[in-house]
Amino acid sequence: MGQIGASIAASLVGFEGFTVTGVDINEPTLVYGQEHKMADVMTRNLEEALESADVVFVCLFPTATVNFLKEKGHLFKKGTLVTDVCGIKGAVMEAAKELPDGVEFIGGHPMAGKERGGIENAEIGLFKNAHYIMVPSESASRESIDLLERLIDHIGFRDIIRAEPERHDAMVAFTSQLMHIIALSVCDDDMVSGCAGFEGNSFRGCTRVADIEADMWNELFTLNKDALCKVIKNLEHHLASYRQVLEADDSNHLKLKIEYSACRKRMHLAGIRWDLSE
Amino acid sequence: MGQIGASIAASLVGFEGFTVTGVDINEPTLVYGQEHKMADVMTRNLEEALESADVVFVCLFPTATVNFLKEKGHLFKKGTLVTDVCGIKGAVMEAAKELPDGVEFIGGHPMAGKERGGIENAEIGLFKNAHYIMVPSESASRESIDLLERLIDHIGFRDIIRAEPERHDAMVAFTSQLMHIIALSVCDDDMVSGCAGFEGNSFRGCTRVADIEADMWNELFTLNKDALCKVIKNLEHHLASYRQVLEADDSNHLKLKIEYSACRKRMHLAGIRWDLSE
Repeated sequence: MGQIGASIAASLVGFEGFTVTGVDINEPTLVYGQEHKMADVMTRNLEEALESADVVFVCLFPTATVNFLKEKGHLFKKGTLVTDVCGIKGAVMEAAKELPDGVEFIGGHPMAGKERGGIENAEIGLFKNAHYIMVPSESASRESIDLLERLIDHIGFRDIIRAEPERHDAMVAFTSQLMHIIALSVCDDDMVSGCAGFEGNSFRGCTRVADIEADMWNELFTLNKDALCKVIKNLEHHLASYRQVLEADDSNHLKLKIEYSACRKRMHLAGIRWDLSE
Repeated sequence: MGQIGASIAASLVGFEGFTVTGVDINEPTLVYGQEHKMADVMTRNLEEALESADVVFVCLFPTATVNFLKEKGHLFKKGTLVTDVCGIKGAVMEAAKELPDGVEFIGGHPMAGKERGGIENAEIGLFKNAHYIMVPSESASRESIDLLERLIDHIGFRDIIRAEPERHDAMVAFTSQLMHIIALSVCDDDMVSGCAGFEGNSFRGCTRVADIEADMWNELFTLNKDALCKVIKNLEHHLASYRQVLEADDSNHLKLKIEYSACRKRMHLAGIRWDLSE
């Protein structure tokens, strides 16, 4: 019942007559959840909660999610729909293969979240306008997928994108993890001390996500190392290319280069794909 | 009377009994400005407008601003306060030295603006919460500085930061120009085609400014080449450093590195400076 789990729980209270049970081992979290009605029931009793659960959202850090699926799989009742909220899917889908027969697993990735975790940062509406990536396991039934789609819709996501685990991890290495590495790396420049008063919205937009939880992002980066290193290397290359054109004092080339990149952004915004090799 | 000039003009209608005159050579702009009351008077007659002007905001592209100050300086009446809105200040302050005696120049940089230019993108409120950087020339009088401060306050800026031209240009190379080079370079990755549906707010925040006007940013980058190349090079280095720690599979190191960068962001947000060498 951290930021993501509690936001999901609170958004689901009242869904199709389900009872929403929030499970956590942290006492203040349980009290806060009860007082703010983040779920119908708050409990630290995992076994009891899983005994009767028809749907389970596992909202833990990546490594903890993988371990939970491996170690607690026997606690799910037969027919339960289990899903997660991790920002990487390869390792999670691998671990889900070890779940007992009859437990239906569908991976999930809500593409939203604030810099600070914890139930006190949860809110209904956190997922408004956000994409939800759904990564069904091969054995997932049509019924389970339908149910999860209704749940996701009820929570308030903008849309649901389907992806294979490999494609998901390659994409988020670029669209999410690289953005965090950029924000962190910008803050490594000593200019960051003393630049107060000179920031516009571009600086705020780019560096907002530098203030992140090191534990979680360490796991996400590490579990997606190859895809992430590839896009970092690409970015180093493209930055160096801009620098070299600047150094060469070739203003015509620079202008064409800006137009080229800006066009690519505009095509992206317009939903146009131009890479025919895929 | 483009996006910036018209936003300033419209925000100043009614200021201390001044008449606001918008000058442009483009006929549709003049008509639009008149219809939308972006100024008290719209005219294409520059000479006449400058003859009686007590305050002039030169709202042109960087190179055009430099040329305007050099070529039209004789048109300002004695005692006029002249200011500009360029994102670089070194070249502008240099050109302003050639203005006739008695013309008071104070450089200005409103740290705001949308991706698309033109009067149709102007709006009162564009500068809400934005910093305004003021770069007075050595000869600027106390009265002129006071007047410009009242104007800036009336327009709605959040605060006024004073800087020397060199410091301004070094700072915006980092806080603004580098952010645009990053956004452009991210869009140079072929992943940008096909990543629709996988973007979160970090991607939107970082790449928003990729869709820029090539002409203007070409000039800004080129006129601030040395400072910009330096911060690009720093970023290449810091990105490579993250990549190398990832490649080395050193998760402890990576976690410390994330914590280090995140701390720097937090200190920046808290307004703490830690570089004692300055």
